[in-house]
Amino acid sequence: MRPEDFILVSVDDHVVEPPTMFDNHLPDKWKEFAPKSVRDEERGIDVWTYEGNVIPNIGLNAVAGRPPEEYNIEPTSYDDIRDGCYDIHERVKDMNRNGVLGSMCFPSFVQFCGQLFSKADDLDMALNMVRAYNDWHIDEWCGTYPGRFIPLSIPPIWDPQLMADEVRRVAKKGCRAVTFSESPAKLGWPHVFGDHWDPFFAACEDEGTVIALHIGSSSTMLALEPGAPIDVMITLTPLNTMHAATDLLWSSVLRRFPNLQFALSEGGTGWLPYWLERIDYVYQQHRFWTGQDFGDQLPSQVAKDHFSFCFISDAAGVAQRDAIGVDSMTWECDYPHSDSTWPNSPESVAKQLEGLSDEVVNKFTHENAIRIYQFDPFAFRPKEQCTVGALRAEVND
Amino acid sequence: MRPEDFILVSVDDHVVEPPTMFDNHLPDKWKEFAPKSVRDEERGIDVWTYEGNVIPNIGLNAVAGRPPEEYNIEPTSYDDIRDGCYDIHERVKDMNRNGVLGSMCFPSFVQFCGQLFSKADDLDMALNMVRAYNDWHIDEWCGTYPGRFIPLSIPPIWDPQLMADEVRRVAKKGCRAVTFSESPAKLGWPHVFGDHWDPFFAACEDEGTVIALHIGSSSTMLALEPGAPIDVMITLTPLNTMHAATDLLWSSVLRRFPNLQFALSEGGTGWLPYWLERIDYVYQQHRFWTGQDFGDQLPSQVAKDHFSFCFISDAAGVAQRDAIGVDSMTWECDYPHSDSTWPNSPESVAKQLEGLSDEVVNKFTHENAIRIYQFDPFAFRPKEQCTVGALRAEVND
Repeated sequence: MRPEDFILVSVDDHVVEPPTMFDNHLPDKWKEFAPKSVRDEERGIDVWTYEGNVIPNIGLNAVAGRPPEEYNIEPTSYDDIRDGCYDIHERVKDMNRNGVLGSMCFPSFVQFCGQLFSKADDLDMALNMVRAYNDWHIDEWCGTYPGRFIPLSIPPIWDPQLMADEVRRVAKKGCRAVTFSESPAKLGWPHVFGDHWDPFFAACEDEGTVIALHIGSSSTMLALEPGAPIDVMITLTPLNTMHAATDLLWSSVLRRFPNLQFALSEGGTGWLPYWLERIDYVYQQHRFWTGQDFGDQLPSQVAKDHFSFCFISDAAGVAQRDAIGVDSMTWECDYPHSDSTWPNSPESVAKQLEGLSDEVVNKFTHENAIRIYQFDPFAFRPKEQCTVGALRAEVND
Repeated sequence: MRPEDFILVSVDDHVVEPPTMFDNHLPDKWKEFAPKSVRDEERGIDVWTYEGNVIPNIGLNAVAGRPPEEYNIEPTSYDDIRDGCYDIHERVKDMNRNGVLGSMCFPSFVQFCGQLFSKADDLDMALNMVRAYNDWHIDEWCGTYPGRFIPLSIPPIWDPQLMADEVRRVAKKGCRAVTFSESPAKLGWPHVFGDHWDPFFAACEDEGTVIALHIGSSSTMLALEPGAPIDVMITLTPLNTMHAATDLLWSSVLRRFPNLQFALSEGGTGWLPYWLERIDYVYQQHRFWTGQDFGDQLPSQVAKDHFSFCFISDAAGVAQRDAIGVDSMTWECDYPHSDSTWPNSPESVAKQLEGLSDEVVNKFTHENAIRIYQFDPFAFRPKEQCTVGALRAEVND
């Protein structure tokens, strides 16, 4: 299959929230308390302020289109980053430039689980902020271009019952994905081993809502030894995903919620053949004294039934796709982060998927994402206008 | 190739030290201070005592020959474990039963880096203990059956110059492997990022001594969240190896000691395709701001040049052998630990290596180990008597 014939749906991109995002989605009562985008003239950067917290945007989070020679981790301003980071019209143009039909966008300044809002004293206000965030994301960010975005909500993470309510509320608007933490205990909440999150998990299972665990969603980077180069951390951070999957697997969550779906966002795929083999080995060798019981299933099958996986460029995962399962692997663009292949994603994907059957290519590039997230772009645009070639042809510059 | 035609050299087994080990290897002055094996009648177990430390043997460390239904982590006694754990003659019989020609045995009660001895107030005495340990291991344990064991020394880890001296001393006796920690900082010593260990690394490079980093050699298990099943820890412990390799790679050690060799003992191989791809990606994408420089090489090549890898049963690694490098992969038996395939290792290996060329099978089963550890079993036994079939035929029971 030629790159221009791909249909690309990315299950992991990021939005740098625009300064105006709360303008139209809050009850009057709460408007003055909303997060505000403020210019720090001295540092030449823009920051968000909320309840005494000051949150800058980090350079590496918005480097799309820059050469690696210019990457750095300094805070930045709206002026310094591509308009497509925060402007929906420019975002869609950037998607078209890259031939990308569909995109699911993770939050930035509110953190992956929206936990910024949990830091308020007034949690009733915080709940209004979460709802406003989700309404902006679903109705304004995604809603401006129907059929181009997979909506993704944030949870009021301080209360599992409120989380469940919000999952059900946004599901009515067609949002069937929600962020959660790869390790809630690291954020100060209970881990997945008890029943604390059951109302949330039950609502997600009922609504067919996918729980997306993005790398970094535990706000915990790998602890570096004194003197360790930062490259150690960059190399190993994806392993938090392996840890999260391992926690969930050996917890009772997957067995108690047999239809619950988790996405391991930006977690890569190359480590999966090893991990799937390892969990079966641990089960077969140690379950007699550890007490694990999966009935007539193997842990690897349970994992495949409950998790979906993402790759940006991951030759090892693609090569071992049959061990991982071709129905669980999805592609991601990661725009505008530093791992993104934008604006050459079709060519990057083509190189990785060379020699694969059209059937498998279609699963990886869009069919799995469409099925897993109940996303229906073809209701809004004829399929033949959804290809890389067709989208790129719409760009005028 | 049929299983009975394999020649098997295991680069990772374990010795449960016998009570008599210090009898013949200490100057008289120190004999009374040597570690002693003592019976704890109340608990029905044997323990070692040394300078106020009491060290039991752990059940899982000596389960060879037992069904998984009987595994547990309770302390145990010499009476409860196979004689082959600690008796050299029985050990060789157990190797013959399993068709294993050669074996490298890691220490047990003194810990992987011999760090038990560093806990003494009198470090001159401790150095004598380390030397006695190594002399016992090389001359008595390995020396009783020439050509059957790859000797492996422990280091006086509290002093890099003494470590260098000991590496050179035992090299004269033919010992060209030494244990070290996957994360010395976790044991309270400096990490590999400075120059603290340079005398040790220099001696190893000079002597062609392989530094073996066994899983668990940081005495750090993965931190479990409250309520986490122990299966999480068992699943993820091998990742300490990935962390250790990552630390060494991005440190300057491999670049400053271009001929230094590390063995990632019991670290598995299935994660390597992912990791090798990841380190190249991190380098190409981030080196401009992190400042890494490998000249005209890629990190993956540097890793392949400096590390050797082990598998017990690791289909994912074998399947991806070309991405890992067929000259870097070695087989291990892990006798008498709970991960061991004893006494059915030949059949386990045959199943894993099915369909591979004889050339690659020979590399994995013995040729790589023989080359990396400068081990020469064929000087002591004609090659045709080294096969699984020939060794099993020597067993009378």
